[in-house]
Amino acid sequence: MPPQDRYTAKNTFRVRYAETDAMGIVHHASYIVYFEEGRSHYARERGYAYSQIEKDGYFLAVTQVNVRYIKPAHYDREITIATWIEQMQSRGMTFSYEITDTERCDLLVTGQTKHICLDKSSKVTRVPNVWRAWAD
Amino acid sequence: MPPQDRYTAKNTFRVRYAETDAMGIVHHASYIVYFEEGRSHYARERGYAYSQIEKDGYFLAVTQVNVRYIKPAHYDREITIATWIEQMQSRGMTFSYEITDTERCDLLVTGQTKHICLDKSSKVTRVPNVWRAWAD
Amino acid sequence: MPPQDRYTAKNTFRVRYAETDAMGIVHHASYIVYFEEGRSHYARERGYAYSQIEKDGYFLAVTQVNVRYIKPAHYDREITIATWIEQMQSRGMTFSYEITDTERCDLLVTGQTKHICLDKSSKVTRVPNVWRAWAD
Amino acid sequence: MPPQDRYTAKNTFRVRYAETDAMGIVHHASYIVYFEEGRSHYARERGYAYSQIEKDGYFLAVTQVNVRYIKPAHYDREITIATWIEQMQSRGMTFSYEITDTERCDLLVTGQTKHICLDKSSKVTRVPNVWRAWAD
Repeated sequence: MPPQDRYTAKNTFRVRYAETDAMGIVHHASYIVYFEEGRSHYARERGYAYSQIEKDGYFLAVTQVNVRYIKPAHYDREITIATWIEQMQSRGMTFSYEITDTERCDLLVTGQTKHICLDKSSKVTRVPNVWRAWAD
Repeated sequence: MPPQDRYTAKNTFRVRYAETDAMGIVHHASYIVYFEEGRSHYARERGYAYSQIEKDGYFLAVTQVNVRYIKPAHYDREITIATWIEQMQSRGMTFSYEITDTERCDLLVTGQTKHICLDKSSKVTRVPNVWRAWAD
Repeated sequence: MPPQDRYTAKNTFRVRYAETDAMGIVHHASYIVYFEEGRSHYARERGYAYSQIEKDGYFLAVTQVNVRYIKPAHYDREITIATWIEQMQSRGMTFSYEITDTERCDLLVTGQTKHICLDKSSKVTRVPNVWRAWAD
Repeated sequence: MPPQDRYTAKNTFRVRYAETDAMGIVHHASYIVYFEEGRSHYARERGYAYSQIEKDGYFLAVTQVNVRYIKPAHYDREITIATWIEQMQSRGMTFSYEITDTERCDLLVTGQTKHICLDKSSKVTRVPNVWRAWAD
């Protein structure tokens, strides 16, 4: 469950056919892309889109991904992804995710991604203040 | 431009980061997936979701894809895809698509996909009546 | 069939599970990526890898894609992609492709992609001479 | 480093353009597909292709994925993926992976995937003996 003490962004979308595989379910790599969509949505909701972050000269590189698969999702189901910041650090952060079937409320997948902040020359740098404020 | 004399479904979504490539733009194969999303949306709007079509024992196999790339799309841009049936035949159909940047109204990509209707044993079969009515 | 009068590059690889969809076959967008692999292989065989082309300040943007799907491919099958230049023009070129099942020799998919040559500022430019020589 | 005391399969392939993103590097979700390729290759080398496993009525569902990203890979680089079984259990197994740049020997990504064995009715079942022997 998303923690009560911090901002959690939720977005919903339907599973695309191209995201399924020959098992008839969503391919496990597709959820990594859903997590990324969760982060994009989170940043947009907080008022500082990731596309703007890159324009400002920062990149959020992924250093770690952990995923647990609980129940499979199928084509055309609407899913909801809850995204929040698990931990903020001076040069990086950890996002957590929970993906559920919107209508049935089944928990499908949980995960975390760790990131470091890079500048334009790919050097590790401090997380911009506007971002750090997200964790307050 | 979508024709005035027939049903056109429109859906919008934002470009995902995973859909871009090292040129900094949406990879050209991603639009094929957008077209598929357009078809899914069309079928849902017409009241007969493609997931239901498959449950009823039909498949809409792709036999041809044609795409023209006019302007590149970028991460985070909201795009609109207009989808309509170009031609209905007894055992198949042709969908047409127009993808535009929602805010700027730039035309980005146009295309067509041809399909044949298969039954569960992968034999070509007549398009179900509920579908054929879409072209009226 | 690839034409006898010009250079044709062939590369083979196995279908990945992630490239299949819930129909149990290779998703139709995956072939666009196979075509791209065919082009990469063609350029490498001709001695001027596409990665080098980009380092030299050129991009080969895709302006058109046409695909015909004849037979579906399945997970783990080894496929062969034949790639050749259909037409060379001063500022672009057309590649043609034929994808077959390596062992069974079944023709699976054919297609063409049209490209224009861009420089670093995204302006249409003349195809570099080293490339134009490919069509001789 | 892959352990010395057990079978390790290695396969190599080049990074595809479609696998890169707007950062100019391989998108982090692409490595999950590389891991899957590593498993496919491992099973094939051990003489029991995963496609055969599925024909025999078994599925190897993914329950967990953990990835560490050390260095980015770029388009056209040849990479090597080493795959081995970390742990074999009665109803599942854990695979480990190491992805390196073939020429430069740089370690790029490491990871693990956990799996459970399902039968055709999606019930958890014992890993077939032919597979269990892999861990000896």
